[in-house]
Amino acid sequence: MDKSFLDKITAKWDEGKFVCVGLDKGEFEFDKTIIDQTFDLVCAYKPQSAFYEAGGSAGLEDLKKTIDYIHQNHPDIPVILDAKRGDIGNTNEIYAKAIFDDLGADAVTVSPYLGKESLEPFLKRADKGIIVLVKTSNPGAGEFQDLQVEDPERSRMGKPLYQIIAQHIADNWNTNNNCAVVVGATYPEELKKVREIVGEMPILVPGIGAQGGDLEDTIKNGLNSKKQGIIISSSRGIIFAPDPRQAALKLHQDIKKLL
Amino acid sequence: MDKSFLDKITAKWDEGKFVCVGLDKGEFEFDKTIIDQTFDLVCAYKPQSAFYEAGGSAGLEDLKKTIDYIHQNHPDIPVILDAKRGDIGNTNEIYAKAIFDDLGADAVTVSPYLGKESLEPFLKRADKGIIVLVKTSNPGAGEFQDLQVEDPERSRMGKPLYQIIAQHIADNWNTNNNCAVVVGATYPEELKKVREIVGEMPILVPGIGAQGGDLEDTIKNGLNSKKQGIIISSSRGIIFAPDPRQAALKLHQDIKKLL
Repeated sequence: MDKSFLDKITAKWDEGKFVCVGLDKGEFEFDKTIIDQTFDLVCAYKPQSAFYEAGGSAGLEDLKKTIDYIHQNHPDIPVILDAKRGDIGNTNEIYAKAIFDDLGADAVTVSPYLGKESLEPFLKRADKGIIVLVKTSNPGAGEFQDLQVEDPERSRMGKPLYQIIAQHIADNWNTNNNCAVVVGATYPEELKKVREIVGEMPILVPGIGAQGGDLEDTIKNGLNSKKQGIIISSSRGIIFAPDPRQAALKLHQDIKKLL
Repeated sequence: MDKSFLDKITAKWDEGKFVCVGLDKGEFEFDKTIIDQTFDLVCAYKPQSAFYEAGGSAGLEDLKKTIDYIHQNHPDIPVILDAKRGDIGNTNEIYAKAIFDDLGADAVTVSPYLGKESLEPFLKRADKGIIVLVKTSNPGAGEFQDLQVEDPERSRMGKPLYQIIAQHIADNWNTNNNCAVVVGATYPEELKKVREIVGEMPILVPGIGAQGGDLEDTIKNGLNSKKQGIIISSSRGIIFAPDPRQAALKLHQDIKKLL
């Protein structure tokens, strides 16, 4: 049986690798050159679904080729499909099948807005990684995510929505030990709070590089008790660098210095 | 210049048509037979992206063919792509281009969790319909959508999140008059509340049929001051009926009786 997402990512952390390269161009031949230059430095690859969808049917074929290429050549590196899916359960069944069974991704990003019940088709897949948006990296993330919420089930009052969502995931959603959360590197204080809430759970941290997130704060606030638990994702900052390997190597080394 | 989504849907309401047929199978040839049987009864078609994506590259080609077929044969019927997208702005630019320019959809469903700033690539498209999830039709929708929220900008306390989101859309997001909202027919009281908040704005109401929403409550609570403003969507209840035309006609006639 294939190794689970959590097993794969933990093995990479054990090797001292925390860099996730975001594949944001949507072309297999481009991805291949990036993978060939970076495979020994990364804990994961994260193709962004939008860029492949933008290529229509040829783009979707490229996405499948990219995932197959990683699995065939580097079966120990997990693939996270960044798709931010979230629909009613009947539709999520179809998404889960397409993403996990047809495309073969090890993990997927999902949106929490429809609640746990809607996400069961993802959550029941114990071998996969279900990575839920909690505090996103964009400048306007706080419009709803930071609103103060009462949560009567727990008699908590006045906690920001993103913390309530993290708490639900940690308390109720993670029965298969396959959940992870997204917190942007652009919000280091929120990252600290989420780490307190989710315990040892993996946190995917986008926003390093082009979006301006600080690496030192990310590591200080994001690591779990085992000095692991973070997937530090950079897309444009690596794949469009003059020398992608050098850019990935620099991020890898900068992280090692801060561990 | 092509007519806007709002112009197209309003023209259909003027003809007394409120039924939206959800295309939930992901096959062009199937869609074609449904469209040929129902085009004179509907205000919109709503292909669900997941079912086409599940078909891989061939599925995406079918989605393009279905949208093209509707535009070529029935240019007055708007196409809503049910995709529930929501990512950071940079990625939403790519999604908006793929959905509106390459696929040619007239409207798209989006998730509000990342806030208005992230959705600008959609919202700036004045001729398109941006249909934001507010209260979804699934049984577990309330996990976050019903949480009581304080909104300090407006000194409102203890309103459910879905109402706060509806208020933000009505007050701040709709400068191009291209916003609409989703409220499930399974939540008629919430539909009434949202209609009070969003004024004349179109409301897409899924959940009639297979999901068990009540038609009479939907119409009573969902119509705007012009006795229009609702897009009543049924998918499985029509497309998998023994006689899809009869099923669409019955829903169309049931609505007419209740107007």
